[in-house]
Amino acid sequence: MVIVGELINSTRKSIKEAVKNNDSDYIKKIAKEESEAGANYIDVNAGIFVGKEIDYLKWLVQTVQEAVDTPCCIDSPDPKAIEAALPLHKGETPMINSISLEKERYDAVLPIIEGTDLKIVALCMSSKGMPETADDRIKIADKLINGLVQHHVKLDNIYVDPLVQPIGTNDNFGIQFLDSVEAILKEFKGVHMMCGLSNISFGLPNRKFINRIFAVMAVSRGLDGLIINPLDREMMGSLITAETLAGKDEFCMNYLQAYRNKLFE
Amino acid sequence: MVIVGELINSTRKSIKEAVKNNDSDYIKKIAKEESEAGANYIDVNAGIFVGKEIDYLKWLVQTVQEAVDTPCCIDSPDPKAIEAALPLHKGETPMINSISLEKERYDAVLPIIEGTDLKIVALCMSSKGMPETADDRIKIADKLINGLVQHHVKLDNIYVDPLVQPIGTNDNFGIQFLDSVEAILKEFKGVHMMCGLSNISFGLPNRKFINRIFAVMAVSRGLDGLIINPLDREMMGSLITAETLAGKDEFCMNYLQAYRNKLFE
Repeated sequence: MVIVGELINSTRKSIKEAVKNNDSDYIKKIAKEESEAGANYIDVNAGIFVGKEIDYLKWLVQTVQEAVDTPCCIDSPDPKAIEAALPLHKGETPMINSISLEKERYDAVLPIIEGTDLKIVALCMSSKGMPETADDRIKIADKLINGLVQHHVKLDNIYVDPLVQPIGTNDNFGIQFLDSVEAILKEFKGVHMMCGLSNISFGLPNRKFINRIFAVMAVSRGLDGLIINPLDREMMGSLITAETLAGKDEFCMNYLQAYRNKLFE
Repeated sequence: MVIVGELINSTRKSIKEAVKNNDSDYIKKIAKEESEAGANYIDVNAGIFVGKEIDYLKWLVQTVQEAVDTPCCIDSPDPKAIEAALPLHKGETPMINSISLEKERYDAVLPIIEGTDLKIVALCMSSKGMPETADDRIKIADKLINGLVQHHVKLDNIYVDPLVQPIGTNDNFGIQFLDSVEAILKEFKGVHMMCGLSNISFGLPNRKFINRIFAVMAVSRGLDGLIINPLDREMMGSLITAETLAGKDEFCMNYLQAYRNKLFE
């Protein structure tokens, strides 16, 4: 399971303040906490700063790298920001979040990753907007994966994000997402599936609980990446247990280690 | 989701005592609690009383029926006990737990349910013992379901139990179970899948948590019945949420009702 720590995102108030004030200590503290809690990538997003995103994203990549060895997940809808921040990343190969089938983004991000060993989040979004059914997602994933592979991106470096939509809007949005995870993994052996969760519970009470149950259901279908808050112990404990039950934990070693580390208390 | 309340089982000490002492008040109290907590069937099992099982099982069926309208799940490995207790059941059609592919049990239980509208748990066990792989389970389920259907049992009355085995013994036992649930549902549209959970966590710490995560994973694969303690609020809350996320809760009404009933507090 690949965990992308989601906390260093400028849509969060404390991060926005820290970025504006050049408070590198705060950013480093969060990066360390995420890394220690088990994040495999530290997401960095400065998307809220229109006009200044590029400078702030570069600063975030540098600041996080000064604090931890964990690679960044460079997160921007703007290919120019990704292109500017990428050369500042010095350690282990980072992840790029994201390419999609929206023509402008697709054409601009593809040359950045072509022939590299970068990890890439492939968002199931097209110029027609957000997908609703499993079929919508499978069709977009099909085009995205084939396009990436033709441009020498390895399946193992592709993390398809089928895009979570809120069940409060349509009570089939959960099952359509889950069915797409399984279908895409069946068609493309070796590709990865990842997502953020919080949209699923939009508009409903007790959101963290819903998100956790949905994460477990997605792992049951084969999802192997999540963009989450790794400091959420209940979420991390649920995920470790779900992976153990999914046959991805030899001799239940990870589960028992997590238990000894008091993750379930 | 069909919930079978598991509490009235003579392997539990308090139930064993109550049965021995003819303490009908205690049995009625548990039956009422299970029914009020959402059980669709009340399991009754007197299997621990060798030589007296038949009398005690008859008494349990009568006692539970005096307390609640919820039908019983008549639970015995001994077809004679089932046959003796069944005529005492007066209300809504009960469930029989269980038939299996073990020759003696199969031959004795089949005539009891043939041509009736009884619900039947079809245990994926054969004379060769417990199944280990998904394939083992699918083969047994195939024979069981075909045999039942040929004897005029409706698919909608069959609850296949693929038999949960402990991941502490083999770390693939969880995924093999889950894969069998999905495969059997795919092959036999309209059949139901049900199981007890507690075996999955045998030998590991924090068992209730593991059981809960596994239940959610099984619902994600289509399982629609469980033999559980319906008084376990965390389990019931997890199941209601999982069903909502699986697209089985129009307008999220059950979820919102459970929230208003403070199930998640």
